[in-house]
Amino acid sequence: MIMKLKFAKRMSYIKASEIREILKVTEREDVISFAGGLPAPELFPIDEINKMNQVVLQEAGAKALQYTTTEGYYPLREWIAKRMNERLGTSFDKDNILITHGSQQGLDLSGKVFLDDGDIVLCESPTYLAAISAFKSYGSGFIEIPTDEEGMDMATLEEVLNNTQNIKLIYVIPTFQNPTGKTWSLERRKKLAELSALYDIPVIEDNPYGELRFEGESLPSIKSFDKVGNILCTGSFSKIFCPGFRIGWIAGDKDIIRKYVLVKQGTDLQCNTIAQMTIAEYLKRYDIDEHISKIVEVYRKRRDIALECIERYFPNDIKYTHPQGGLFTWIELPENISAHDILQKCIEQKIAFVPGSSFYPVEHKENTFRINYSNMPEDRIMKGLQVIGEVLKEYIHQLK
Amino acid sequence: MIMKLKFAKRMSYIKASEIREILKVTEREDVISFAGGLPAPELFPIDEINKMNQVVLQEAGAKALQYTTTEGYYPLREWIAKRMNERLGTSFDKDNILITHGSQQGLDLSGKVFLDDGDIVLCESPTYLAAISAFKSYGSGFIEIPTDEEGMDMATLEEVLNNTQNIKLIYVIPTFQNPTGKTWSLERRKKLAELSALYDIPVIEDNPYGELRFEGESLPSIKSFDKVGNILCTGSFSKIFCPGFRIGWIAGDKDIIRKYVLVKQGTDLQCNTIAQMTIAEYLKRYDIDEHISKIVEVYRKRRDIALECIERYFPNDIKYTHPQGGLFTWIELPENISAHDILQKCIEQKIAFVPGSSFYPVEHKENTFRINYSNMPEDRIMKGLQVIGEVLKEYIHQLK
Repeated sequence: MIMKLKFAKRMSYIKASEIREILKVTEREDVISFAGGLPAPELFPIDEINKMNQVVLQEAGAKALQYTTTEGYYPLREWIAKRMNERLGTSFDKDNILITHGSQQGLDLSGKVFLDDGDIVLCESPTYLAAISAFKSYGSGFIEIPTDEEGMDMATLEEVLNNTQNIKLIYVIPTFQNPTGKTWSLERRKKLAELSALYDIPVIEDNPYGELRFEGESLPSIKSFDKVGNILCTGSFSKIFCPGFRIGWIAGDKDIIRKYVLVKQGTDLQCNTIAQMTIAEYLKRYDIDEHISKIVEVYRKRRDIALECIERYFPNDIKYTHPQGGLFTWIELPENISAHDILQKCIEQKIAFVPGSSFYPVEHKENTFRINYSNMPEDRIMKGLQVIGEVLKEYIHQLK
Repeated sequence: MIMKLKFAKRMSYIKASEIREILKVTEREDVISFAGGLPAPELFPIDEINKMNQVVLQEAGAKALQYTTTEGYYPLREWIAKRMNERLGTSFDKDNILITHGSQQGLDLSGKVFLDDGDIVLCESPTYLAAISAFKSYGSGFIEIPTDEEGMDMATLEEVLNNTQNIKLIYVIPTFQNPTGKTWSLERRKKLAELSALYDIPVIEDNPYGELRFEGESLPSIKSFDKVGNILCTGSFSKIFCPGFRIGWIAGDKDIIRKYVLVKQGTDLQCNTIAQMTIAEYLKRYDIDEHISKIVEVYRKRRDIALECIERYFPNDIKYTHPQGGLFTWIELPENISAHDILQKCIEQKIAFVPGSSFYPVEHKENTFRINYSNMPEDRIMKGLQVIGEVLKEYIHQLK
């Protein structure tokens, strides 16, 4: 009967997110999962959240449970502006900030604000798979720009900008990229800001992992080199506080943010009031840098162990990245090997990861996969990567 | 500089919601506001929420703060299915339910699932203004169908269905409608379900107020007469629990809900985890019917006082509705009077309401306005309506 209904055209190309389907498998406790981008739950500040919830309900009472403005709770927006100015070289105040339902909503709203059917989004190759879904749902196509160890290839980018109609957005994750873990150099950051201004194309600088640096020096944001107001930045409390609250933000030029606010009004009115107030209260009463340094310490160790295990257990002819922070490392297999085949064999042994093909909007490379090292304790990381290594070796052996 | 950027076409017709702009004025404590659809904050179960927050954090711990499934927390979805079956004559289980970021998100997702540029949405005249924004952002046009005391005019609806291309959705609020407070008769409900099946056009049955009945008998939902699976229902905890949590739902045929889930994945991944668990825990440990009956008692009194005051203080030649439940009554002024003029004079005296023109997607009737009676205590309702009455009388007097 349903088949008689006419759905929007976009429904023909919106597919289930492979990650979220794999995550369903990994809900079973006995599965070792490198699949999601899940932060380590044992690091969530549960007691502090419990206390701050109570403080907010005692002090603000019903206001914490009532409707509030679309823009978001202003002390939280003030904190975010100050933080970004200190850490990312921006010059924002609260009116540059819109609180969003996770940074994912910042991407969806960006699609709504900028994209018409048939427009083109430029992105890194590979890129964050749920950004692909978000933009695709507004009918956009993609052009993947190759990346190396310093970030997006600027010569290719400029060539594409010169030769392509309907480019409406450039989407990048310059720090501890998802899925590769790579970080852009200072030069590339500057260059992208220049090209964005030259070609009048807005940039979405997605930055959910930037606070989680294990080593090396912090770099200014691409936004800090923006002279014309073209660059928008997303951020999130999911990785430095907890993801269950669904509180992130998008920041940019006030006139553009005003457009995002209008669009959010019709989308969902506003974000969760008490979640915003609880985070703001936490930031007032606790030292989030101390908390972040705990997270960084744990994740650094997990990254170290993950890279050691990959080095030790994986066959010699694979490549992997060395992330300076964030949650992911990226594996490239020899070209004739499909990560989907490997995943299938690993899942039989209760190990999960995400095959890389989902991270390419156009040219699906089957011989890649992503390893998340933040969510599992060290012994399970070792165990899991050893199994993947054995599966890989056996698979390659059988091919020969 | 910004003007050089190209925004999506939709940005040329997305306007600021008049309500949310007026709400900013009404944030001042000294303003008597009939403007928002705000529930009475003194009725929020603050202590219970505080306790349930703690119980959830103690019992579920980090799980309450971690990512979860897009579909939503399954005990909450089970409760919603059971509730709808008991109260609205549906036959749902948890897989018919998707948790949304307020019922507003159910409308936005409906736009994303069904609407292409140039499609037509049929709605009541007048209708909920943020539904207009939600659907408009997907490029839809509207045809308003006249309503009387029994609901939408079915003869006109059928004529329009017969004579119009590209109709993709019918959007209705059949119980305690926003903005009019009207409730559809049983006959009209049945007839709409029939027409929906006959013409293969899905219906969004928006029902955020249905639990708040002051008098008269509960009616089955339009969905209960759906034989083909075309009808989707939204619901919300905003009016029976608290709006700050932003937890609502959309319910319908499993194959259609599966499409909504896909779309929500790319939009914002999932709703707030702890908010869903806190509500589910509350529903397990407390009697929500007892809580709702308290709300109903207070709102019934406020409606009675509001209608009495309108009768007493307003000029004779205005019309107003007699809602059997919900939050709103609807005022029709003589045709030569603009509610915007009246609002301006009232705001000088620190009284606010929403002029009716925003509730018409096509034919803006300037001589109407909406009164919300749920948010103010009785003495302020009396004071405020007396002032509006005086302003109206003086305005009419000067016209003569």
